[in-house]
Amino acid sequence: MKYYSYDNFKVDTNILIKKMQSFNPEAIVAIARGGMSLAQAIAEGLDLRDVQSIRTELYDDTQMRDTLKLFGSCDFGGKKRVLVVDDIADSGQTLEAVMENLQRQHPNVVFKSATLFYKKSSIVEPHFWVNEADDWIDFFWERDFKSD
Amino acid sequence: MKYYSYDNFKVDTNILIKKMQSFNPEAIVAIARGGMSLAQAIAEGLDLRDVQSIRTELYDDTQMRDTLKLFGSCDFGGKKRVLVVDDIADSGQTLEAVMENLQRQHPNVVFKSATLFYKKSSIVEPHFWVNEADDWIDFFWERDFKSD
Repeated sequence: MKYYSYDNFKVDTNILIKKMQSFNPEAIVAIARGGMSLAQAIAEGLDLRDVQSIRTELYDDTQMRDTLKLFGSCDFGGKKRVLVVDDIADSGQTLEAVMENLQRQHPNVVFKSATLFYKKSSIVEPHFWVNEADDWIDFFWERDFKSD
Repeated sequence: MKYYSYDNFKVDTNILIKKMQSFNPEAIVAIARGGMSLAQAIAEGLDLRDVQSIRTELYDDTQMRDTLKLFGSCDFGGKKRVLVVDDIADSGQTLEAVMENLQRQHPNVVFKSATLFYKKSSIVEPHFWVNEADDWIDFFWERDFKSD
């Protein structure tokens, strides 16, 4: 397990911002919780004020398979290029579901995705990513904040 | 102008998490963009998965007054205690508008607000806050991410 510090995040997020400049997004959708700090950082870097969020939950359905439910709706008000942001594409299940759902609801918008980490075993590859994940990532936001 | 580093944020967010434990929120609403990293950090600290966001924009209306517009709707699914999070209560205009709007739309939910900074000149005082702001705060997320 590798501790991923804020300093790592700062360096990688600036790399990610440079990678996506040709896309020139007009709005950002954060996948909560994991993508929220990254979405804010990218939005600051690109000077974008339109940041929205989508939340997902995994349920065991009656067939004992995991079902992903999405919460929250987005409104892009005529914008054409939207970046979808998460910390990691691990199984890729969340990212795939969010991208498909957004594209279905907003057929005239071009969506691209960005993550800090990408696992080769993910069912989808983000359009923009920085690091390949070959171990469990201990993100600073999962380690640094405690209620006790 | 004071640089507010990630290390400052880490210490203060943990203080904020302790202050709000008696409230025991079931969901968090981030005011975008400024409240998103803080919302994620508090959610991690309190082990809350339900994090949503609201976005605001200031417009000049025809009477030349600033008008605040809110975007995004929340769904709390029967939850009773919701924390609203922003980085700073400066004029307090945003926080007041978001709190009033959420309370009107969700009359059965108890909303409390939390910020890292509070200016005494703000028209509302957050329920939970850590620092009094007497200078312009240069938050790390406004400084550390650049597109050039």
